[in-house]
Amino acid sequence: MNNRPLKVALLGLGNVGAALASELQRRGDAIADRAGGRLELVGAAVRDPARARPGVPESLGKSADPMALALREDVDIVVELMGGTGLAGEVVRAALAAGKAVVTANKALVASDADRLFALAKAHDAPLGFEAAVAGAIPALRALEVSLAGDRIRRVAGIVNGTCNYILTRMEVAGLDFDAALGEAQRLGFAEADPSSDVDGEDAAYKLTILARLALGAAAAPEAVSREGIRGVRAEDLRRAAEVDLVVRLLAIAERGDDGAIDLRVHPTLVPKEHPLAAVRGAMNAVWVEAEAAGPLMFYGAGAGGLPTASAVLGDLVAVAQRVRGGAGAVPRAGSEAAKLVDPGARQASVHVACLVADEPGVLAAIAGAFARHGVSVESCVQHGRHADPVELVFVTHRCREAALDAALAEVGALPAVREVASRLRVQPDAEG
Amino acid sequence: MNNRPLKVALLGLGNVGAALASELQRRGDAIADRAGGRLELVGAAVRDPARARPGVPESLGKSADPMALALREDVDIVVELMGGTGLAGEVVRAALAAGKAVVTANKALVASDADRLFALAKAHDAPLGFEAAVAGAIPALRALEVSLAGDRIRRVAGIVNGTCNYILTRMEVAGLDFDAALGEAQRLGFAEADPSSDVDGEDAAYKLTILARLALGAAAAPEAVSREGIRGVRAEDLRRAAEVDLVVRLLAIAERGDDGAIDLRVHPTLVPKEHPLAAVRGAMNAVWVEAEAAGPLMFYGAGAGGLPTASAVLGDLVAVAQRVRGGAGAVPRAGSEAAKLVDPGARQASVHVACLVADEPGVLAAIAGAFARHGVSVESCVQHGRHADPVELVFVTHRCREAALDAALAEVGALPAVREVASRLRVQPDAEG
Repeated sequence: MNNRPLKVALLGLGNVGAALASELQRRGDAIADRAGGRLELVGAAVRDPARARPGVPESLGKSADPMALALREDVDIVVELMGGTGLAGEVVRAALAAGKAVVTANKALVASDADRLFALAKAHDAPLGFEAAVAGAIPALRALEVSLAGDRIRRVAGIVNGTCNYILTRMEVAGLDFDAALGEAQRLGFAEADPSSDVDGEDAAYKLTILARLALGAAAAPEAVSREGIRGVRAEDLRRAAEVDLVVRLLAIAERGDDGAIDLRVHPTLVPKEHPLAAVRGAMNAVWVEAEAAGPLMFYGAGAGGLPTASAVLGDLVAVAQRVRGGAGAVPRAGSEAAKLVDPGARQASVHVACLVADEPGVLAAIAGAFARHGVSVESCVQHGRHADPVELVFVTHRCREAALDAALAEVGALPAVREVASRLRVQPDAEG
Repeated sequence: MNNRPLKVALLGLGNVGAALASELQRRGDAIADRAGGRLELVGAAVRDPARARPGVPESLGKSADPMALALREDVDIVVELMGGTGLAGEVVRAALAAGKAVVTANKALVASDADRLFALAKAHDAPLGFEAAVAGAIPALRALEVSLAGDRIRRVAGIVNGTCNYILTRMEVAGLDFDAALGEAQRLGFAEADPSSDVDGEDAAYKLTILARLALGAAAAPEAVSREGIRGVRAEDLRRAAEVDLVVRLLAIAERGDDGAIDLRVHPTLVPKEHPLAAVRGAMNAVWVEAEAAGPLMFYGAGAGGLPTASAVLGDLVAVAQRVRGGAGAVPRAGSEAAKLVDPGARQASVHVACLVADEPGVLAAIAGAFARHGVSVESCVQHGRHADPVELVFVTHRCREAALDAALAEVGALPAVREVASRLRVQPDAEG
């Protein structure tokens, strides 16, 4: 290995880019020690080169042309922090095709274009790091790729969207309803003005496909993920859940069934209070992994934020730098196969169902009858409230086919005495009795 | 990189060795895919080669001479699972000196001989992996070494002894006292017949010095760790702690003070119920890390057991195999410096102190006076029980010098009305108000 300084082009100077530039300057010697030589920031590409950027070294040359900067002859490593899949994708693909190492935090790009990116990296022997694209500071991807390389992973369940976790834990702790918790998250900067990508599970679906690729070797497009966001979770559901020592988390789940088919889904999930995933609160993230030999593992940490994300980018920078200097690793294995996805109709779960009904004789019998006709077995049923209209009936099913439950609930919803099937929440599989 | 099969010598065929041999056979193709070529087990060294070993391939040649096997010309990688620091140390050092790659799960060896081992690995360019030596299946060491390479770690707090965690959580959940919980752990195989290395914190101290080396670059002998085991933790303490939403965990803590001095200590610690470390129950392990940029991180998983430990050994095997094939990494950085340790007299903590006293006027005043004379400020004091002898007074101090508290408690213990200072438990620093 040689020790020449490696030249780094930085595309994007937002929160993460600025934190990265500042860390590279402040801790250059320590980072050089780990990376086998200095990492020299030779320029940054930004939309407006004239804008003042506090915290970013004055001396750093700024350009408005990311493609030209990335492809400069002397650049060894391109750090892409622009976001988006258009220009960012073009630049990343061109850099890989030119044999340059690339580090990116761009989950949308990696999720939607992984096949091409991995193939380019392999064809041009170009290292590609994207640890920061999933669960911010948490080094979960490297663990899946390297540390668990000798093991076989059965299931991954991640809390990978800090906005949703913040909202759900505020609803849990403060008894807020969804809208109030979302408003609070927006005021505090944990949610965007348009929160749909977060609260509808799209962001989590992106990250899930990246996890599935590394953990299960299963390639799938983000659109193939079954997803359900958290807009339908009621404060009432969290209160009822707490009474039986459960909490709600938005889980992004990838698992391989006994027949080899892969299930990819994002939905609010009931998790026992004692489960380590229940200890993930506020905007924190975690990735729960079940491996054949290792057993259960969890990786916990900050999922977003300039400095935490910069830490993950720095870890990748050190790894790809070692690779550029003649080492191994850091080129993604191209071993992912197009996932054979499960038939959604075959999915099974134990589910909590809340129905708002008129408090009159025969309602329970009618609902129980609908469940029975579809082969859904009820583990428990509790009525909350009396002599009110409506009262709430909460059913917990045994593990059943979700499609059968859907059909049963369609019948239930049509019963005259039933005002509304107000919510349905699946129970985390490893928590089922 | 070439793809020739690499030859592996396996020293030791206990739980972990047998699980490893079986996994290498069962999952050989998948492991070859990750390791860049096949890993071929060429022989095992055991004390009694004639003994039948269920689960271990019949064809595996067995020898009673680990040194000869390790140094065989054709062996590329030596996996040391013998344990102990005598013969195991000789063999590992000889293998490294011969330029062979070594993977070991031997915490006592790595903790007590790290300086020599790391220097040999560096001098002979020999990869050395020891992920399995700390926290079993959890890939915490690689995260510290690689993923956080660009960050600066301030503090590590590990639950690294599954025996103690099992005992403490059984005391917490079932109200058992220490002896009953230990007996149960022994019956279930979670504790040895002679449990002292576990319950007195020696095992945790070994692991702590390895963590400190990788996380803080601080080299220290296991004897330099201040340690206090869990024999003195009373069921009563756990009940009182639960009343104020605290639990007790045996934490192995390494931190760097503002003056650069390193504090290494193992002791039972009060942790808030909501803290992720409190979600670590039974024989599970976890490593909590606080990094400057990444913020808090936690790595959770099985700390022991044949298969989980074999998973970590396999991860190391894949990493060193890539290295043997011409890659980078896997040779420990020799950057650790002899740690400047903190002056124990300067340590500070907030502490819960339980005193058994006669229920008579003036006792509280006398104890409070002793605290005051030594500058220990009391945050709260609660008397449990009345008209009994003794009653229990529980004090919570503000953050104070532990040496001052020791001096105060010596006076308290000598007061005529004080039967006993029954326990003292430090509060986890990041949980202090």
